Amino acid sequence: MYKGGYAGKILRIDLSKQSAKEETLPEELAKNYLGGAGFGIKYLYDEVKPDTPALDKANKLIFAVGPLTATGASCSSRMAVVARSPLTGAVGMALAGGQFPAEMKRAGYDMIIIEGKAEKPAYVAINDGEVKFRSAEKLSGMMTTDTQLFIKEELGDHNYRIACIGPAGEKVVPMACIVNERRAAGRKGLGAVMGSKNLKAIAVRGHKRPDIADAESFRKARQAMNKAMKDSPVLYPHFAKAGTPMVVDAMTEMGIYSIKNWSATGQINMVPGLGLKAQDEMIITRSHCHDCPVGCSQVKLVTSGPYAGYLSEGPEFETTYSLGSTVGVDYLPAVIAADRLCDEYGIDTISAGVAIGWAMELYEKGILTKKDTDGIDLKFGNHAAVIEMLRKIAYQEGLGALLGQGTKKAAEKIGKGTGDYAMQIKGLELPAYDVRGAKAHGLNYATSYTGADHNRGYAFQEIFDIPIPEKVDRNATKGKGRLTKWNQDTRAVTCDCATMCAFLLDMAVPAIACQNTADLVNAASGMNFTAEDIEKIGERLNNVARLFNIGAGFSRKDDTFPRRLMTEPIKAGASKGQLISQKDLDEMLDEYYAERGWDKNGTPTAAKLKELGIK
Amino acid sequence: MYKGGYAGKILRIDLSKQSAKEETLPEELAKNYLGGAGFGIKYLYDEVKPDTPALDKANKLIFAVGPLTATGASCSSRMAVVARSPLTGAVGMALAGGQFPAEMKRAGYDMIIIEGKAEKPAYVAINDGEVKFRSAEKLSGMMTTDTQLFIKEELGDHNYRIACIGPAGEKVVPMACIVNERRAAGRKGLGAVMGSKNLKAIAVRGHKRPDIADAESFRKARQAMNKAMKDSPVLYPHFAKAGTPMVVDAMTEMGIYSIKNWSATGQINMVPGLGLKAQDEMIITRSHCHDCPVGCSQVKLVTSGPYAGYLSEGPEFETTYSLGSTVGVDYLPAVIAADRLCDEYGIDTISAGVAIGWAMELYEKGILTKKDTDGIDLKFGNHAAVIEMLRKIAYQEGLGALLGQGTKKAAEKIGKGTGDYAMQIKGLELPAYDVRGAKAHGLNYATSYTGADHNRGYAFQEIFDIPIPEKVDRNATKGKGRLTKWNQDTRAVTCDCATMCAFLLDMAVPAIACQNTADLVNAASGMNFTAEDIEKIGERLNNVARLFNIGAGFSRKDDTFPRRLMTEPIKAGASKGQLISQKDLDEMLDEYYAERGWDKNGTPTAAKLKELGIK
Repeated sequence: MYKGGYAGKILRIDLSKQSAKEETLPEELAKNYLGGAGFGIKYLYDEVKPDTPALDKANKLIFAVGPLTATGASCSSRMAVVARSPLTGAVGMALAGGQFPAEMKRAGYDMIIIEGKAEKPAYVAINDGEVKFRSAEKLSGMMTTDTQLFIKEELGDHNYRIACIGPAGEKVVPMACIVNERRAAGRKGLGAVMGSKNLKAIAVRGHKRPDIADAESFRKARQAMNKAMKDSPVLYPHFAKAGTPMVVDAMTEMGIYSIKNWSATGQINMVPGLGLKAQDEMIITRSHCHDCPVGCSQVKLVTSGPYAGYLSEGPEFETTYSLGSTVGVDYLPAVIAADRLCDEYGIDTISAGVAIGWAMELYEKGILTKKDTDGIDLKFGNHAAVIEMLRKIAYQEGLGALLGQGTKKAAEKIGKGTGDYAMQIKGLELPAYDVRGAKAHGLNYATSYTGADHNRGYAFQEIFDIPIPEKVDRNATKGKGRLTKWNQDTRAVTCDCATMCAFLLDMAVPAIACQNTADLVNAASGMNFTAEDIEKIGERLNNVARLFNIGAGFSRKDDTFPRRLMTEPIKAGASKGQLISQKDLDEMLDEYYAERGWDKNGTPTAAKLKELGIK
Repeated sequence: MYKGGYAGKILRIDLSKQSAKEETLPEELAKNYLGGAGFGIKYLYDEVKPDTPALDKANKLIFAVGPLTATGASCSSRMAVVARSPLTGAVGMALAGGQFPAEMKRAGYDMIIIEGKAEKPAYVAINDGEVKFRSAEKLSGMMTTDTQLFIKEELGDHNYRIACIGPAGEKVVPMACIVNERRAAGRKGLGAVMGSKNLKAIAVRGHKRPDIADAESFRKARQAMNKAMKDSPVLYPHFAKAGTPMVVDAMTEMGIYSIKNWSATGQINMVPGLGLKAQDEMIITRSHCHDCPVGCSQVKLVTSGPYAGYLSEGPEFETTYSLGSTVGVDYLPAVIAADRLCDEYGIDTISAGVAIGWAMELYEKGILTKKDTDGIDLKFGNHAAVIEMLRKIAYQEGLGALLGQGTKKAAEKIGKGTGDYAMQIKGLELPAYDVRGAKAHGLNYATSYTGADHNRGYAFQEIFDIPIPEKVDRNATKGKGRLTKWNQDTRAVTCDCATMCAFLLDMAVPAIACQNTADLVNAASGMNFTAEDIEKIGERLNNVARLFNIGAGFSRKDDTFPRRLMTEPIKAGASKGQLISQKDLDEMLDEYYAERGWDKNGTPTAAKLKELGIK
């Protein structure tokens, strides 16, 4: 039995009945799924039929933290948010950091399961185990910052931490996100699921501290982790200063920074406007998640020009791409403004930006005209147009209503071969890495259970040249099946289940991540995981998620790329000529499935499921 | 000796030395000046030479609450902010409500005096008498909502209440204001004084409750006040629902709602776009100041169209004029957006809007051209242009840098007779009431010690037809000297010194305001004021303020109107033909000065000063 680390309780909220009940955290769940995404996806798999329409009240929205959250372990104030995704139809899982996850744990819960649908807009306030349902009618249509302020004032305590949706979530825009302060569970439209339940926000306030089973061992394990972080040649010397934007320069050099809807990768150098130096100049302070000694998150503020006054925690690397390079904008103040507006409307910066970039390409090709755009001159580089389109996406106005459905559905509607340029996999828009020149990134995009998601099995080996678990050639395809399985499994457990920050894994402790996680969790909880157990949990999670997706109709045919990536080589730069052909993909998939113990169609074999103890 | 009501302490902060010291509240001060503006202006008069440049570090910035603040007396969570004004050079005093004033009292202070200038941007945090100086360098350029959030996070307690400046205050724009939450000490550029001291914010947190000297008497006095409020035919039945926008319709009917820089009063009916019905449709909730049972303040939210997402606590009546009718805009969502942006930049909505309206008239007359406006088509009614100009005012860009100085200085710079259309008195831009058809309003504008300020002696008699202290004809000039003195003195003491909400005086208790104030203050503090003592305090305050202004160079010549009002009659509507001629003004001034015991030049006589005990 776990003796610490966990809060030990699950809160199940039925919005239809406005009722809440507590359940004891099952020992078996902790042992087999550790926490966070493991908990959420296991419950999704057990309790939600995979063909449930994502915006139906039968879908569930689950918030889950990890066994280290709020224990004082570095970088562990993160949570997984889980539901069937309205954007992809697959498992929807997104992580968020900030202060909310630690506060949720301190309010007494490892997991909050939201069921049903409130009759009228509502929010839930949770204070040390006391749950209140409150009307959110007056909050309808409110931006996320104002929403949080009004709820705090109404509750009479501004120290609540709040996760909420903006206007886009209320309007169930399939790329809507969930925002807590300046952080978001950004991708896969989980904000729309929240909106479909008429749930405007969850407010949490807690004063409990999780017990620690073995304080001395925990201290040592923390020290070991902190030492690994200090020893990293990247984490403090570079990353703590430069944050994720440091990757913009690196990837530009590698020729894999995607530009203008992936039509101009390597042809244009946007670094003068968007790179490290430009970003550095706009930083006013750094922001730390709870219990984070690094503070990679940069707060940037525009102090002059047309966007003066806009502040965002970001744009981090991905948003610099989605609201910058892929829409052809290299004016950083405009990216900051667009980033803030996405947070306020509650829409995913990546999907929104990529959808606009795609529409810009169609506009430049003449497939869309000013008649379609309500007169907006939707050329690449027109940042005022980007900002106007974001509003249209959030409020489902004109072309925005279509783009908000995601590029996959929008391309089906527009037809004319536009799907070839819709940069999405399984309906999820592609992150910044032009995978034609980073094949493990590509295989991960193709196979991630959430769609094209860099966070599910990030191939840091291809970017930082770290030879763990082995040295790789980013343009090679061979070996990428094995590598991708390892990346996905270790990341799933350390980041998504233990809810430790991904950057730790990438930059500090990749070689010892599973052992470190085991040491920390064992010390905190009194359990007895080995490093192998830990990695196995990651594998188990990836298999359960795959089973859900198979039930939802996904199979090998969906583990693929937009046609552009398989037919148009990168035209210039250090990755010139690179491409992922159908043959490349097939070879990588065959290897990957074999490594996973899945059949040729990507279905887990009975033997594998038995090995993992999945029914 | 006072026994309750007051906190009993003054906090004196020297920013140059980063030091703070407490002083005991002098009994004589309480007896002669009651609180709020009385305290602030008395100290300004005693401690700041009237020729001190307003943005010099020798100017002082004073925050003062009243003897009823935080006692539970209705509508008493207000404060006066005082300094020499950079916009007018006269006494700068503005009131603000919200939560900050009560929190300041509960932190232990009746008055906070800010002296000197911080070497680098700083803020001050006050927690139950503990004062900390903190760097605000990273907050430089931040909008006011973000500023408050970052400070709360840094202090580790989001329950601080904060008064701060935005980018405009930092840039010492003379029409910059001080914002606490969605409330502002709006007028006379007090935000610029704060900025000139490198003071970004004051954060207060308090847990004390003022003692009540005689609880039973206090309960009775509160009940009497609350009964008068309930008995008012206006306060709850109309005002609590409709808020200040109810006056838009009434004034339109009376033909005194100022339109297009006062060039079109009565000619255009803007009520369809800006009136009660239009405003009602956008209300999402009401907001209460601390201890306020009325909640007149309306929160409005734009939920569709180009300004979707903008929320403001307002626009109340004056902002509906300044960012609406006087700039020819009758599209309420644009007014809401502009109102919010003013709060975020930290600029006074009235001065900013009136300055833009004036520039629009000059643009339409051809005196300003697109060359002057950086290409902006500054026609009346162009709301996008208004919003763009607000940013330019806040960031001192192009024409905005000029308009931000106020219309008086801008007209001196432009010349060409443009001062005739500059709607200002003593440098302060005019509020909404077209005083050509409301002569006591006019005399009050002309003589208020802060410049054209409707809040110093609001002639509710002319608007609501309330015969207290006597029935009046709004177009008559005779008797307006006596009326204006009474309005100014009673308002000064009940609203500005006792810091009770002006709307109480106007709508609930005008006849008994001084007696009620005496009863409440006596019960709370154990002092022994009569109604006559109370009224005398108001008179004393108006005399001290006048003396400061005389020292600053003001005299009868400055108690006047923009030329337009004295030469162009209202052209249409219910007040058609009305005007205030030089003769009208002279007659009213003569009567007013005589009533006040001032000489022909408007200087208090020695006898009057002796009577009031002013040295």
